[in-house]
Amino acid sequence: MSNMPQSDPTNSASIASGVIRSPAAGCVAGIDLGGTNLRVALADLDGNILARSAVSSRDLRDPGVAVELIRDQVRELLAGAAVKHSDLHAAAIGAPGITDADGGVVIATSYLMGWVDVPLRALLESALSVPCAVDNDVNLGALGERSRGAAQDVRDFVFIAIGTGLGAGIILRDELFRGSSWTAGELGYMLVPGTSVEVPNSGEPGPLERLIGGEGIRSQWQALWDAGDVKAPRDLKATEIFDYALEGLPAARSVLQHTSQLLAYAIHNVWLTLNCPLFVLGGRVGLHPALLAATQEQLAQQQRRIQPRLALSALGEDAQMMGALRLALNTAGVVGTRPR
Amino acid sequence: MSNMPQSDPTNSASIASGVIRSPAAGCVAGIDLGGTNLRVALADLDGNILARSAVSSRDLRDPGVAVELIRDQVRELLAGAAVKHSDLHAAAIGAPGITDADGGVVIATSYLMGWVDVPLRALLESALSVPCAVDNDVNLGALGERSRGAAQDVRDFVFIAIGTGLGAGIILRDELFRGSSWTAGELGYMLVPGTSVEVPNSGEPGPLERLIGGEGIRSQWQALWDAGDVKAPRDLKATEIFDYALEGLPAARSVLQHTSQLLAYAIHNVWLTLNCPLFVLGGRVGLHPALLAATQEQLAQQQRRIQPRLALSALGEDAQMMGALRLALNTAGVVGTRPR
Repeated sequence: MSNMPQSDPTNSASIASGVIRSPAAGCVAGIDLGGTNLRVALADLDGNILARSAVSSRDLRDPGVAVELIRDQVRELLAGAAVKHSDLHAAAIGAPGITDADGGVVIATSYLMGWVDVPLRALLESALSVPCAVDNDVNLGALGERSRGAAQDVRDFVFIAIGTGLGAGIILRDELFRGSSWTAGELGYMLVPGTSVEVPNSGEPGPLERLIGGEGIRSQWQALWDAGDVKAPRDLKATEIFDYALEGLPAARSVLQHTSQLLAYAIHNVWLTLNCPLFVLGGRVGLHPALLAATQEQLAQQQRRIQPRLALSALGEDAQMMGALRLALNTAGVVGTRPR
Repeated sequence: MSNMPQSDPTNSASIASGVIRSPAAGCVAGIDLGGTNLRVALADLDGNILARSAVSSRDLRDPGVAVELIRDQVRELLAGAAVKHSDLHAAAIGAPGITDADGGVVIATSYLMGWVDVPLRALLESALSVPCAVDNDVNLGALGERSRGAAQDVRDFVFIAIGTGLGAGIILRDELFRGSSWTAGELGYMLVPGTSVEVPNSGEPGPLERLIGGEGIRSQWQALWDAGDVKAPRDLKATEIFDYALEGLPAARSVLQHTSQLLAYAIHNVWLTLNCPLFVLGGRVGLHPALLAATQEQLAQQQRRIQPRLALSALGEDAQMMGALRLALNTAGVVGTRPR
């Protein structure tokens, strides 16, 4: 494996050699491994997507099965796009858990997948026979927004993903900042006024996530529903609750207000720590425009001095895939138009 | 001024030229401008202090008067140490406020000094006729701990200074991280369970600082004193209250417990954001060993996974001065044994 990158492929210093310049010279694969879907895409060396697929990722508790599925998807996409496997230069995958990007190891995912210390990069390299890279999925969301999304003009920003849970990818001085044990950006565990100070058990959601992750928002809603006369179904997704808020339903507006207030506290806390000029909201729930507007209003009320800009992800549900493709391009030694 | 460093002197890339190697070749001056004292020190080019002085800095509302006082102190120290002014290579000053380190401008200090947009670097360079650098005093505390104190073995850490107020200096990837508008590390404004969510007026202490800055700790104590039968004087300094806590006085123990709990919440929030392995406590109040022990205990209760290390400043009240001297050495082009 002497032709593999020896150091962090997102570090610009490490990609000085092996530069591939012709956009016709091949392609890379990006993989977004979520709790619901496994998405795979091929892109040319300019990062333009050539082909993509999505299959269910439920019951992927066995990493070997997951890697076989990825290999099959990549093969199908290559065949469909009439690209030879020898023209695949690299692949990168975003995993939903704590990920050692240097070692290419998924240290831990949620209990649903239950992965612990999975050497995902080695497994993928063995299956695909190309250099591979692995990172946390929210980190790759940040990388995607930096390279092709809402953060193309800043060197420091925080990408906040709200889906089932809540997490952040942090880019500082134009590099992902992952932390000493790969857990930087775990905003779901933040303590703000209104969160419980009880310490969650291992594997349980953090105190902030428990309130304003997608599941937390549903719980807020169901508590209100159980307590009163709410003229809407009890079983709604977080985004549907926000839709009702836009329609003016009081209980839904109350959930939106509380969620945006807590989110604004968390953004405030990260802002006063890092003083970074931009926060980007993403993830299935975080993409809802009602949340953006309500949180911007809360921030405006909370801050008197210079405020951070809060923007919606420009890539939507593709943020993590675009980050995976950017990381794959870095791994292939393709110099991008932007630092990584 | 073509011989002045053109870029951030704390960036190691900018000091490649103009290297001075002989320890006998001269000296630099460090200046720690606090709300109570103005401290000045001379150090040789190995960073060893040759001479130092401290004078009252009360009523230094006029920056011109402050700079004259600094010039006089530097002259006296040079004369006392029998060093010619021509052997002074550079000076650096830590200022108690928001400081544009690139522009050398103190943007704002507390209302006590009342400085706004003071071009302190230019004033100092004019007075001392050597290249000068300016930074926030807590940032220089972090730089001091990194170069000669408790953080010599880490590339990422947070220095938390508790004096009258509460602030932090953040070193990431071995460089000070100052933020896009120079306010990174303003932990005094953090919102945690127990702080007020009222927005403070301009110039007022932040919600966390209001409770656990030195003045906030005194206020906690006085509120308890007023409410009950406390067998100790009402008018105590924060450190004296902590002394009483060590002696077992219930009211003082209660203040210590509450202070350490809130501090631990704040450290937890920064830790989950940055996942940096070390926090260093400094500042007059932060140096009290009772606070360290109580906060370590709180952190141990709050965290189940990997915990950050919490250490006492190794430099004590000299942290900021040692940082100022390190910055002065960087400004003089002296390559240290450690990155800055």
